[in-house]
Amino acid sequence: MTTDHLPGVSRTPRRGRPRDAARDRALMDATLAELQANGYSGLTTAAVAKRAGVSTATLYRRWRSKEDLVVGAARAWAEELGPDRDTGALHSDLSALLHDKAAALDGPSGRLLRAVLGEAAHNRALADVLMDQFVMPLQERVGAVLDRAAGRGEIPPVEDALVVGEMVIGPMVSHTFLIPHTPGSRPGVDMAERLLPYLLRALGAATAPVPEAAGRE
Amino acid sequence: MTTDHLPGVSRTPRRGRPRDAARDRALMDATLAELQANGYSGLTTAAVAKRAGVSTATLYRRWRSKEDLVVGAARAWAEELGPDRDTGALHSDLSALLHDKAAALDGPSGRLLRAVLGEAAHNRALADVLMDQFVMPLQERVGAVLDRAAGRGEIPPVEDALVVGEMVIGPMVSHTFLIPHTPGSRPGVDMAERLLPYLLRALGAATAPVPEAAGRE
Repeated sequence: MTTDHLPGVSRTPRRGRPRDAARDRALMDATLAELQANGYSGLTTAAVAKRAGVSTATLYRRWRSKEDLVVGAARAWAEELGPDRDTGALHSDLSALLHDKAAALDGPSGRLLRAVLGEAAHNRALADVLMDQFVMPLQERVGAVLDRAAGRGEIPPVEDALVVGEMVIGPMVSHTFLIPHTPGSRPGVDMAERLLPYLLRALGAATAPVPEAAGRE
Repeated sequence: MTTDHLPGVSRTPRRGRPRDAARDRALMDATLAELQANGYSGLTTAAVAKRAGVSTATLYRRWRSKEDLVVGAARAWAEELGPDRDTGALHSDLSALLHDKAAALDGPSGRLLRAVLGEAAHNRALADVLMDQFVMPLQERVGAVLDRAAGRGEIPPVEDALVVGEMVIGPMVSHTFLIPHTPGSRPGVDMAERLLPYLLRALGAATAPVPEAAGRE
């Protein structure tokens, strides 16, 4: 795992010094690693500080509590779906969205999400940050894709965009999280390609190209 | 929470005595409660035994290790989707399946699943029992529903039944687990009703009745 592409951390530097930014990155990296290894309950700020190579005092200057630290990590590792790209057609818009979502789920943000889902059942701060950082960006981008497609006359107006959003996120989450995969496989990408023709039909798109057999697991 | 409907535990009694069955139920109940409160990492067999009102020695006579106990709980709380019912039409077959799945997700098996999903990322025994007890029964029932519908000529033969299975399980999992809900709401039931017309269209069913507005959250 690398933190080269760690999003968000350098967005809100406390001070301008590169050393602090590097410390923040190391702390977010260590938080994800500890969450994966020990879950929310098993995570201690001492273990995170040790793994990051900083003192506990340093950690507490930046994050006031364990919950604050993990919520911060959920923000730092939030899905970077990338910008909504208008490709001019529903098929390619939806394909781009599915592949962006797949890349996010197969990467560190997917591992973070998986590691904190259980705790979020009874931790409102964590549930709220998952909603803000993982669900809303996806739902908004789905909405924009559907509006454009309806505007072009490719599909009838969508009555329940939230359900379509769940049909984008849900199958990839369940396929990635519920089925044992061989190391190195990319279940999100596999599901993205297989899901596309069914989604297009569900939306009433006139044509639903069959995905290429290549690229399936 | 009650264990009145706890599935599976009494299926494989070690001895025939009611006292043992009651102890087993109490242990499975306590395991789920501890998993929800503290996650897999935070769960200790001592805490489970204490909550169940039995000695640790009694627990270890039945379950050799913490992993054995949690895998046993995943089997005991596995989804009871109920029997595959042939209602004679795709619409009603799929509706029954979605509502059975919703009831499972909104109940103790859903809470168990949510509590162990993170751990299953790096615990093969747990990942395998989730696959066997949660994914396969659903996929098999989806396959049977689709085969009957295609046999009746309601839909063309389905090329990728696994994807359709993920379209049944996925949106309800993501809607239940990723979105904060008010206590007492039934997000699975809500999603089941809203998902149905989109699934029918995805399958190429001739008619896709619009769900009633009543019953939505």
